[in-house]
Amino acid sequence: MAGNKFGHIFTLTTFGESHGPALGGVIDGCPAGITIDEDAIQADLDRRKPGQSKIVTQRKEPDQVEIYSGVFEGMTTGTPIGFVIHNSNQKSKDYDHIKNAYRPSHADYVYDKKYGFRDYRGGGRSSARETAARVVAGSIAKQFMSGVQFHAFVSAVGDLKLENPHLINDFSSIESNPVRCPDPKMAKEMEEYIKQIRKDGDTVGGLVTCVIKNVPIGLGEPVFDKLHAELGKAMLSINAVKGFEYGSGFAGASWRGSQHNDLFNTDGTTKTNYSGGIQGGISNGMDIYFNVAFKPVATIMQDQNTIDKSGKEITMEGKGRHDPCVVPRAVPIVEAMASLVLADYFLMARTNSIIGDHNDI
Amino acid sequence: MAGNKFGHIFTLTTFGESHGPALGGVIDGCPAGITIDEDAIQADLDRRKPGQSKIVTQRKEPDQVEIYSGVFEGMTTGTPIGFVIHNSNQKSKDYDHIKNAYRPSHADYVYDKKYGFRDYRGGGRSSARETAARVVAGSIAKQFMSGVQFHAFVSAVGDLKLENPHLINDFSSIESNPVRCPDPKMAKEMEEYIKQIRKDGDTVGGLVTCVIKNVPIGLGEPVFDKLHAELGKAMLSINAVKGFEYGSGFAGASWRGSQHNDLFNTDGTTKTNYSGGIQGGISNGMDIYFNVAFKPVATIMQDQNTIDKSGKEITMEGKGRHDPCVVPRAVPIVEAMASLVLADYFLMARTNSIIGDHNDI
Amino acid sequence: MAGNKFGHIFTLTTFGESHGPALGGVIDGCPAGITIDEDAIQADLDRRKPGQSKIVTQRKEPDQVEIYSGVFEGMTTGTPIGFVIHNSNQKSKDYDHIKNAYRPSHADYVYDKKYGFRDYRGGGRSSARETAARVVAGSIAKQFMSGVQFHAFVSAVGDLKLENPHLINDFSSIESNPVRCPDPKMAKEMEEYIKQIRKDGDTVGGLVTCVIKNVPIGLGEPVFDKLHAELGKAMLSINAVKGFEYGSGFAGASWRGSQHNDLFNTDGTTKTNYSGGIQGGISNGMDIYFNVAFKPVATIMQDQNTIDKSGKEITMEGKGRHDPCVVPRAVPIVEAMASLVLADYFLMARTNSIIGDHNDI
Amino acid sequence: MAGNKFGHIFTLTTFGESHGPALGGVIDGCPAGITIDEDAIQADLDRRKPGQSKIVTQRKEPDQVEIYSGVFEGMTTGTPIGFVIHNSNQKSKDYDHIKNAYRPSHADYVYDKKYGFRDYRGGGRSSARETAARVVAGSIAKQFMSGVQFHAFVSAVGDLKLENPHLINDFSSIESNPVRCPDPKMAKEMEEYIKQIRKDGDTVGGLVTCVIKNVPIGLGEPVFDKLHAELGKAMLSINAVKGFEYGSGFAGASWRGSQHNDLFNTDGTTKTNYSGGIQGGISNGMDIYFNVAFKPVATIMQDQNTIDKSGKEITMEGKGRHDPCVVPRAVPIVEAMASLVLADYFLMARTNSIIGDHNDI
Repeated sequence: MAGNKFGHIFTLTTFGESHGPALGGVIDGCPAGITIDEDAIQADLDRRKPGQSKIVTQRKEPDQVEIYSGVFEGMTTGTPIGFVIHNSNQKSKDYDHIKNAYRPSHADYVYDKKYGFRDYRGGGRSSARETAARVVAGSIAKQFMSGVQFHAFVSAVGDLKLENPHLINDFSSIESNPVRCPDPKMAKEMEEYIKQIRKDGDTVGGLVTCVIKNVPIGLGEPVFDKLHAELGKAMLSINAVKGFEYGSGFAGASWRGSQHNDLFNTDGTTKTNYSGGIQGGISNGMDIYFNVAFKPVATIMQDQNTIDKSGKEITMEGKGRHDPCVVPRAVPIVEAMASLVLADYFLMARTNSIIGDHNDI
Repeated sequence: MAGNKFGHIFTLTTFGESHGPALGGVIDGCPAGITIDEDAIQADLDRRKPGQSKIVTQRKEPDQVEIYSGVFEGMTTGTPIGFVIHNSNQKSKDYDHIKNAYRPSHADYVYDKKYGFRDYRGGGRSSARETAARVVAGSIAKQFMSGVQFHAFVSAVGDLKLENPHLINDFSSIESNPVRCPDPKMAKEMEEYIKQIRKDGDTVGGLVTCVIKNVPIGLGEPVFDKLHAELGKAMLSINAVKGFEYGSGFAGASWRGSQHNDLFNTDGTTKTNYSGGIQGGISNGMDIYFNVAFKPVATIMQDQNTIDKSGKEITMEGKGRHDPCVVPRAVPIVEAMASLVLADYFLMARTNSIIGDHNDI
Repeated sequence: MAGNKFGHIFTLTTFGESHGPALGGVIDGCPAGITIDEDAIQADLDRRKPGQSKIVTQRKEPDQVEIYSGVFEGMTTGTPIGFVIHNSNQKSKDYDHIKNAYRPSHADYVYDKKYGFRDYRGGGRSSARETAARVVAGSIAKQFMSGVQFHAFVSAVGDLKLENPHLINDFSSIESNPVRCPDPKMAKEMEEYIKQIRKDGDTVGGLVTCVIKNVPIGLGEPVFDKLHAELGKAMLSINAVKGFEYGSGFAGASWRGSQHNDLFNTDGTTKTNYSGGIQGGISNGMDIYFNVAFKPVATIMQDQNTIDKSGKEITMEGKGRHDPCVVPRAVPIVEAMASLVLADYFLMARTNSIIGDHNDI
Repeated sequence: MAGNKFGHIFTLTTFGESHGPALGGVIDGCPAGITIDEDAIQADLDRRKPGQSKIVTQRKEPDQVEIYSGVFEGMTTGTPIGFVIHNSNQKSKDYDHIKNAYRPSHADYVYDKKYGFRDYRGGGRSSARETAARVVAGSIAKQFMSGVQFHAFVSAVGDLKLENPHLINDFSSIESNPVRCPDPKMAKEMEEYIKQIRKDGDTVGGLVTCVIKNVPIGLGEPVFDKLHAELGKAMLSINAVKGFEYGSGFAGASWRGSQHNDLFNTDGTTKTNYSGGIQGGISNGMDIYFNVAFKPVATIMQDQNTIDKSGKEITMEGKGRHDPCVVPRAVPIVEAMASLVLADYFLMARTNSIIGDHNDI
């Protein structure tokens, strides 16, 4: 109830603070019989982990996952999958300066107000370190949904933007550059820009686009649990996200219906895909695509005026180890959340009808 | 589970097809002791109902709500509030032409695939007529959250856009024009544009902005149930919505952290509000504001090529009574969903702490 | 959240007070494609309704159900099934004497304390009249689980008890006597006893036994949602229930393991069935059987000392129209709750495994 | 969804098999500000752990809990409490004989049918070892509900039964004997009986009674989530439980209303308490009491006929380390589940009314 559980049938509950002994999670509702590749999970974690390249935070965390239950002889048993990632590089002293002070545009102030006090070390529960648990679960969800391809990538850093990112079909270069942009030339520009931002002691926002291919028809529930509504919630729950759009998105709001409607081919596919693979909240088998907007990280390497607990004005020095731009590391998190949604809705779809087209789902 | 329930503690479950005998809902978890103004509920319904002006659909539905339970002697009792709106103007025969055909960019095709068959009359469950139930529940939520002000309005129709709509402070003109735009001059332009669109037998999309004032501090749950994630899901669950952004939104993705951070005043308020009233997923007491993107309505008054159930190409004639632009009628729906989220999170916040600042919540 | 919803996937949310305009409910998650027999629903309602025989309350309520949604051309569509039963025989004035007084062993006192006030007419939400909505939903669940047989019957009234009721195999006489006891001789004794109780202005408790035949193997979730735990909650949620036992039940607590273990036949069935068809919380295909204990109805036709709202002692006269013994009318309610649990767990079971024996479920 | 989560607001999700690396859980929704006594948690675990006395299994497991999150400087932070108990004494080879065989009255057969295969070591997820996680969470719930006293004890072993156990007021001897029976003389008899049972290579069932004192008025939700319905589900979810009754229970089913009604004192308390502290599903401030029936453990030290996976008849030897009677170790589990229910319903009650008597809750 208190917001640390995601999903309806295929569910993930996470726990852990950035500077406690460990973080982790429990996946409940994962079906029995899925062969688990632990190396693939670790590979996804490595895409998220700090210190992976020169344009991300230089903190070092091995982020090694231990699975405690729910997998037996390499296969899921249908019982809950409990897993833990031990924290190894906590420098809690780094955070003494924020013990009694509120960092601008962080959660410090609201946590103190809401809970009466807070674990101030590294942001505690509000740290994006929590997303490591999502990546573990998302990787398992991807192994369950093995017929579906999830392609997330960076489509903008600051003002550097790819045109029509949802039309990209060649995803082969994404992992070959530290920005995770599928266009090598743009990737290089973005990388240089992020380096400059870092030199300035500043941070910058960006966009992640996700294209999901080979989606079964029929995923999505009517009314409140539309597929895109849950995808939107999933993305908006990632730290630093400010916006979500799918299909034609915000641009589509200025179009005419006669331009926007996706006409059918005789096989039920559509000639265009402004719907973004979802109609009436239910997948139609076309590619699902969406954009996720990330604000610039709030922790900057510059002095800022702020207040302490007593309301006194103070100057806060910029220090610590932080990302100048969060989107390269956000890519596997976006994929993880997307795969969790699809796995969950796939299982729900199995309960929807006794006459529907189950070959499709 | 099948997606017709919204909320965690203050919950709404809706039912009803556009051409069945009635639609309605059940609110469970509404606290006892709230004085209910039934006229205010009806007034909100009237803002949503068809036929209210020349720029919306000319269908006539009185949309009269009957409350069957949970209110006694004018006050909520704490037991579920069941309510019904009888349908009175169903012209099911109008829909015989879509019985075996799939309207482009509608839910017809996916409903048939998912469920094996569908109630084709007026879109059945996928009709936006369902949102009448949301408006009833949202109106009750607003009466519960009476200290909070919800101001939704139209900020764009096609390419006609208000600048910085979240900075608008004068909401007095919203209800005095059929578009529900707070700027009378822009409202007039939008109205003319919608009339032109209708003459063309076409439709157009738009934006609704919502500004929420006097929000208690501390609403929002960590990690998956962040306040803006739930607001996003709420908005994306409204028919025709393609995008959601709050605070700096998509624009903020190109900013630098040094521009974007909201510095504190000594009373805990912030000098700017790019955070949109929410930090770390929790309300900080500043105005919450967000934009919702609506695509153009798929039903147009033009011939379109499409397919029937057997996959045969057919031509579908444009007919029926539909909205050329959905945003004027969407305004009360956006408010309703926002108030449902806030009422729900307000109740959750009462369970979060035994030492937190409960005066604030 | 506030407790008016039952189930996980196949869910029922109910609303309504005994003396409001109507009661009803919403079934969400019912699969598409089930042919609905409305006469069968009404027949189940008639088994629960007041005034059906001389040994139940003489109130007259037709209890006619109206289905508002979710069924189209006689078949479920997969969308929520909203239904309403209008109240027609409310004599609210009958309850003026309890407006400010607390009936002993009723919910009056705790409702006032919990909610601050209450709808006192006929018990309001705490009235067993609410169970009419459960019978509607349960009847639909039975139509979905059409291969499974639910046989509930009265096995005790006061000290008149059937021996080994779970071994009964002939259910043909249950509906041919007003007590709903499968043994005609015992039924006659019980009937006479209830008549005597009524003459005494008193009430008496009893037991309902339920035997479920032809249950699929594999229903039930590990740990907290064991099948019998949910059946227990379902039964304990019925008004006046004080106890639940399944299989060997309380008697089994004094046995030895060597007596209690159910040895296997080679086909996986067991030679005995002290397990009551459930092992480790999961159905094993044998008959499920359980007993439900109902206390005597608290409303008696005798003067009782009690207190009013101010804590003053008063004498309350016994009046109104009430059941001398609740179990005959409880039989369809027990069946309804059992069928709701099985329908829900059947759908859950479809999501548990990609390698399990789906032919069985 | 798959049944490993308990509670609505104060929730526990558990994971872990008896022979995996670790078991544990996540508590979500625990309010901030509760001072945590880790020694008290360990003390409760020690009451459940194997090897604690001569009448329980002689397996040795230290059952040492590690809290990974949610507690900072000795106080709950309002974020999820993740905890782990490492398994240390797994002798998986002990279970090779059940790899392909089904133990009578165990979950082996149904797990194989439901999931397609199973982790057969020590029962895997169906082992009562899982309840260690419940004891951890229950101990934290008790610390939150520190004003309430939970007294569970053994009231029967086989045919040795305490009379009117719910009237016991002296709980001082419970922990001073290995049976956990409050009557020292009966405790001695029970102990001797269990020793005899063990010598016979057999097992025996028993009853646990729980008396809860100082319960706030107003806990419990209408209709489906009645307080006793949730307590019943909680108890029935414990391994080996076959029945639950509260207040007058099964005995009350043979009483008359004129005997059974609890008349009021002028302060709102009642002269008798056949209601068991709950009326209409809501606590009335009187003692809550209930009985829980445990069957004899299925694993006996005798040869039994059974079948293997292929359906072939085999003889299974009785071996391993098991409890001759489970109730002494079940006492802290019953308390744990009761405290989880009350903590959860206490938080729910804070959301029920804006005019109710909050001093009471």
